Amino acid sequence: MTQLDSAPATQQAVRPGRKRDHTRDPEIMTAAMDVLAEVGYERMTVDMVAARAKAGKATLYRRWPSKADLVLDAVSCMGAAKAGVLPDTGSLRGDLVALLSPRTVHDADHKLKVMLGLASVIAHSPELAESIREAFLEPRAAVTRALLQRAKERGEIAPDCDVELLSTVSSSMVISRAMLEHRPVDRAFLLSVIDGVIIPAAGTGPAR
Amino acid sequence: MTQLDSAPATQQAVRPGRKRDHTRDPEIMTAAMDVLAEVGYERMTVDMVAARAKAGKATLYRRWPSKADLVLDAVSCMGAAKAGVLPDTGSLRGDLVALLSPRTVHDADHKLKVMLGLASVIAHSPELAESIREAFLEPRAAVTRALLQRAKERGEIAPDCDVELLSTVSSSMVISRAMLEHRPVDRAFLLSVIDGVIIPAAGTGPAR
Repeated sequence: MTQLDSAPATQQAVRPGRKRDHTRDPEIMTAAMDVLAEVGYERMTVDMVAARAKAGKATLYRRWPSKADLVLDAVSCMGAAKAGVLPDTGSLRGDLVALLSPRTVHDADHKLKVMLGLASVIAHSPELAESIREAFLEPRAAVTRALLQRAKERGEIAPDCDVELLSTVSSSMVISRAMLEHRPVDRAFLLSVIDGVIIPAAGTGPAR
Repeated sequence: MTQLDSAPATQQAVRPGRKRDHTRDPEIMTAAMDVLAEVGYERMTVDMVAARAKAGKATLYRRWPSKADLVLDAVSCMGAAKAGVLPDTGSLRGDLVALLSPRTVHDADHKLKVMLGLASVIAHSPELAESIREAFLEPRAAVTRALLQRAKERGEIAPDCDVELLSTVSSSMVISRAMLEHRPVDRAFLLSVIDGVIIPAAGTGPAR
């Protein structure tokens, strides 16, 4: 990422003591994600994001010298949000299905559109790929991992179940479906992954 | 795809009766895939492919007016190859492992590099995405589907196993790993998908 501290130096010299205003950041980050999801990285401009966020262009350029900087920051912020409480329905299937609220499915679809908008740059930027992985895939994988681990500990699933690998199945299938099949990633598809892959692959534990 | 028949009309008028030479096509298609895997779609040029295939530039431009035409044809050709005999080791795991010959793993890795080279255009071209799916993913999914179906018929796996969905798991996990994790898709990883996901998810049949 470009060094951000050097560019605005003159600005700060002109107005000594003036702090950079970060209060509009959440709106700007959200606007950046929305523009990315709608038009993709190539056609996206910092001006579009400023217009969407109803923020001054100068404010954006001062803080993010390039489109790449803005996108990298926006992706990272998206990952920093949430975590939340783990569902605890008493069964692994119940827990996994509880994750599929309309809100979550909608959020996941939005993230997916952002990812598709970034497809052209992911291949050339390992740094961006890593940010995307951390922001979009890892939080969800961490939740699935925790649910699988808990189910293993209470003896509901197979003791040799590969928790690490299984926790990545759902996002992999979602990405592949969206990128290469251009088919919708809806609740029905997500349920089929739970019932057709994850639950049977997790096996049944010795305690049953 | 651009209409190919109109462009070479003058050539044919000058040398009546001369047929277009297709004997070098396999080398040209292979060269196109190699260049794509090495430098990616943006940096690839038709000239690079001509040089790699030791073919005349004019030959290539006559047949493929644009880089997009050449790539679409090369991807389709890649899919037309093979199919081959299904392995028949007597067990589903044996069959799936039999698919992981060094040659197959090497071929899959090359295809993956081609796909990564095309990542920037996949998002904007449903036609190319579909060609890639048909050429790279569908043949392998078809083999896995046939092996799962056969195992189901002989009662080795669960009668309600979702064959269709399970046959897409491996390629999805490969794509996601390569694109977003930039980690190697080697034999060890492919084996872990067989043993950690596909085999346990397929379950055990009533005949056992």
